[in-house]
Amino acid sequence: MRLLTLRDGTRDGELGIACRDGARLVSASRIAATLQAALDDWEHVEPALRELADAAEHGRVATRSLRAGDLHAPLPRAYEWVDGSAFINHIVLVRKARGAEPPKTLETDPLVYQGGSSVFLGPTDDIVLGDVAWGLDFESEVCVVLGDVAEGTTREQAERCVRLVCLANDVTLRNLVPDELAKGFGFFQSKPATAFSPFAITPDELGPAWRAGRVHLPLRTTYRGVLVGDPHAGDAMHFSFFDLVAHIAKTRSFGAGTILGSGTVSNADPARGVSCLAERRMRETLEHGAPKTPFMEPGDVVEIEMLDADGWSLFGKIAQKVVGR
Amino acid sequence: MRLLTLRDGTRDGELGIACRDGARLVSASRIAATLQAALDDWEHVEPALRELADAAEHGRVATRSLRAGDLHAPLPRAYEWVDGSAFINHIVLVRKARGAEPPKTLETDPLVYQGGSSVFLGPTDDIVLGDVAWGLDFESEVCVVLGDVAEGTTREQAERCVRLVCLANDVTLRNLVPDELAKGFGFFQSKPATAFSPFAITPDELGPAWRAGRVHLPLRTTYRGVLVGDPHAGDAMHFSFFDLVAHIAKTRSFGAGTILGSGTVSNADPARGVSCLAERRMRETLEHGAPKTPFMEPGDVVEIEMLDADGWSLFGKIAQKVVGR
Repeated sequence: MRLLTLRDGTRDGELGIACRDGARLVSASRIAATLQAALDDWEHVEPALRELADAAEHGRVATRSLRAGDLHAPLPRAYEWVDGSAFINHIVLVRKARGAEPPKTLETDPLVYQGGSSVFLGPTDDIVLGDVAWGLDFESEVCVVLGDVAEGTTREQAERCVRLVCLANDVTLRNLVPDELAKGFGFFQSKPATAFSPFAITPDELGPAWRAGRVHLPLRTTYRGVLVGDPHAGDAMHFSFFDLVAHIAKTRSFGAGTILGSGTVSNADPARGVSCLAERRMRETLEHGAPKTPFMEPGDVVEIEMLDADGWSLFGKIAQKVVGR
Repeated sequence: MRLLTLRDGTRDGELGIACRDGARLVSASRIAATLQAALDDWEHVEPALRELADAAEHGRVATRSLRAGDLHAPLPRAYEWVDGSAFINHIVLVRKARGAEPPKTLETDPLVYQGGSSVFLGPTDDIVLGDVAWGLDFESEVCVVLGDVAEGTTREQAERCVRLVCLANDVTLRNLVPDELAKGFGFFQSKPATAFSPFAITPDELGPAWRAGRVHLPLRTTYRGVLVGDPHAGDAMHFSFFDLVAHIAKTRSFGAGTILGSGTVSNADPARGVSCLAERRMRETLEHGAPKTPFMEPGDVVEIEMLDADGWSLFGKIAQKVVGR
């Protein structure tokens, strides 16, 4: 089941379901007005949504054509957006890039940060950039949307908390990061609004690619019309989503609709390319002594998607253009 | 106008209005189902809420008695909880306590962190402590609840974004902080669920005590039945709420219902006492070479409130007991 949110002028939009071809949709607002409402009452709502999805897929209810511009983020706002950094290769490269040491507990203690969640960007929303000097970068990620997570949830219990899977562009202002992290309280101004993929899908849609709390497929990022990376999102993810859930739930609970990100997808093999410009710049520095690739500028377009074994776009495509403020 | 949220078995509770005596209330659910719904449509909803508040105050509508245990946090969950650290004296003392330097930009660049917001505690909810070794501490704070805040909002424009004022107990697990901050991404496990005061009130309820983006009244904290601090929340607040709004809005927008905290209220004058145990422990260390006051243990009770010039409790009282998990 592939859930989406239609823009309807309200803050939370209208819940819909995409057909498998990604070209048609059906409104699900008679079952639950919004995706948050569905997540709040998932046990009761899910069966009806699945029935409607099946009816739409097999032509038993009327569908309408799906246009990317009509879609908001699946959750246009969320009660919590927690982003991990589970691809260790990314941490090592990015810290090298800013002359910082990776944390000593790199392989045993997950890095996570709390992101802003009252305003998200839709999959084709422009990225409005206030100042090119801020060093705008994209970060292509995989996320899960959680149901209620009780404090003390273990890795083994975490699987049952995962409701949906989606993609994100966790936009970062690289040149604001060093001064901000030096203050000791983590990211804030350096993390503007995050964008999400058109569809948030149930894990069963991934088939065998969803296993051990990871999505075992490559994540494709196209920048300025060129494929810049298709690293594998599975085995290189050092901490699984289940590990991350257990980590964040050590001292508190989370409400349904919490979004949990993997961090930038990154493989050690340079041939797999990158999911952010900072990594490419670091590789250039290691090779040539200085970065060649500039950060993003107005007019630049970044596209992020994940294809299944048959070439279908599982989550639809994030496709964002940078514009000046 | 003093808004509150009644527990009714739903995630967001039922919107109500407290009478001035804090002893009676009226449901406002016919006007807006929840406080978030009211904030989402404040321009339209506020006049009707004010009319109902006035009618309740003057006995023109039936009221019922208010029991602290019936109340949830004004927003039982929020789309964003951003906590500043605007009382510089607190930063200096707490960093001394953990042997860390205050940031170089202490007086020019506000410290803020992004907190978890999908699960808040009500004003009389127990604080469930998983492990005494985590070093549980309270932090008494003043907060504002914001309307929509556009990216680039200036300090001068910020006043119109402030909808409500409330108090918070920003619970902290002190012994988890050093390792967590050493990782570079800010607080996470060290910040369990935050509790809020019974009432979130409109700034006009503060009269002349609300000026220049600060609440010019002492904040009283009672611990184990003894008043441990009544520092002034006004002049010692180095960055005003308007400064904090301008800071957080530099690179992104915020949706209505974002809660913004002052950080632990703290005065340089030791006679004013403390709003957290970490400060008291630091003062003990400076005086005696070691802290004497332990962190919180099961059975401990902390109470936080603010009185107006006539001795009325403006926000009602946060009164929480620590219990083991």
